[in-house]
Amino acid sequence: MMSVTLATDDIRYMRLALEEAQKAAEEGEVPIGAIIVSRGQIIARAHNAVERLNDPTAHAEMLAITMAVDAIGGKYLRDCTLYVTVEPCLMCAGALRWTQIPRVVYGASEPKVGYHLFADNAFHPKCRVEGGILAAESEDLMRTFFASKR
Amino acid sequence: MMSVTLATDDIRYMRLALEEAQKAAEEGEVPIGAIIVSRGQIIARAHNAVERLNDPTAHAEMLAITMAVDAIGGKYLRDCTLYVTVEPCLMCAGALRWTQIPRVVYGASEPKVGYHLFADNAFHPKCRVEGGILAAESEDLMRTFFASKR
Repeated sequence: MMSVTLATDDIRYMRLALEEAQKAAEEGEVPIGAIIVSRGQIIARAHNAVERLNDPTAHAEMLAITMAVDAIGGKYLRDCTLYVTVEPCLMCAGALRWTQIPRVVYGASEPKVGYHLFADNAFHPKCRVEGGILAAESEDLMRTFFASKR
Repeated sequence: MMSVTLATDDIRYMRLALEEAQKAAEEGEVPIGAIIVSRGQIIARAHNAVERLNDPTAHAEMLAITMAVDAIGGKYLRDCTLYVTVEPCLMCAGALRWTQIPRVVYGASEPKVGYHLFADNAFHPKCRVEGGILAAESEDLMRTFFASKR
């Protein structure tokens, strides 16, 4: 029962991350969204804002981290889970390492710039990283976005 | 002659980065400073502000990148050099990759969290990365800082 409940929550939070990704798409941003949850409470929701902020570091995960540490009032996210619709890049994996977050759940794999291409050990060894949650939905968003750009 | 001039500039910019690192130390931050130069103009100078901003992503390089893209008005740093007093971590290397910066010069090596421990290919293959510039000065600052924390 426990695992069923957890999986349901994971899907619920990933759906919210997908809603964030959809907002990014509507703003002409690469559609990636992120949610950070602490003990059942959503403490950050963000979407990619590289174009809007004109800042190559304004990925959904980075914005969510800054929002979450602000909400918590400390610089660690030790009891949190981050949900992100696409596999984090090296920068975001490195940032999450600094937060000491114990769990990261992502949707679609990122075959070109995903962290695992560069460093399988980018995350802290104690961080549990799980991919593939609602991956098809995330891939659809990405595919539609990039097709519209061609 | 060319290389002598370049080397002199590198040392001058690294001294400014060390001044930034010194400011960080005075604020109780891990003493790391960064400068970004575009065609002979300094467009960003920043120091580590993790404690002040209570944000684990507020490394000198990340702050300098955001400052520099703001100054340039574009999200790439294609004609820039970043000077940083200590070898970048994985997050900062990943961020610099996104900026397409062609050159990174650092001072001291970072044996515990430097990017090279995780991913030697973290930087773009076209990015020239040079370490060891005024490394002793940077190491002194770091050693003094951590000794004072014990």
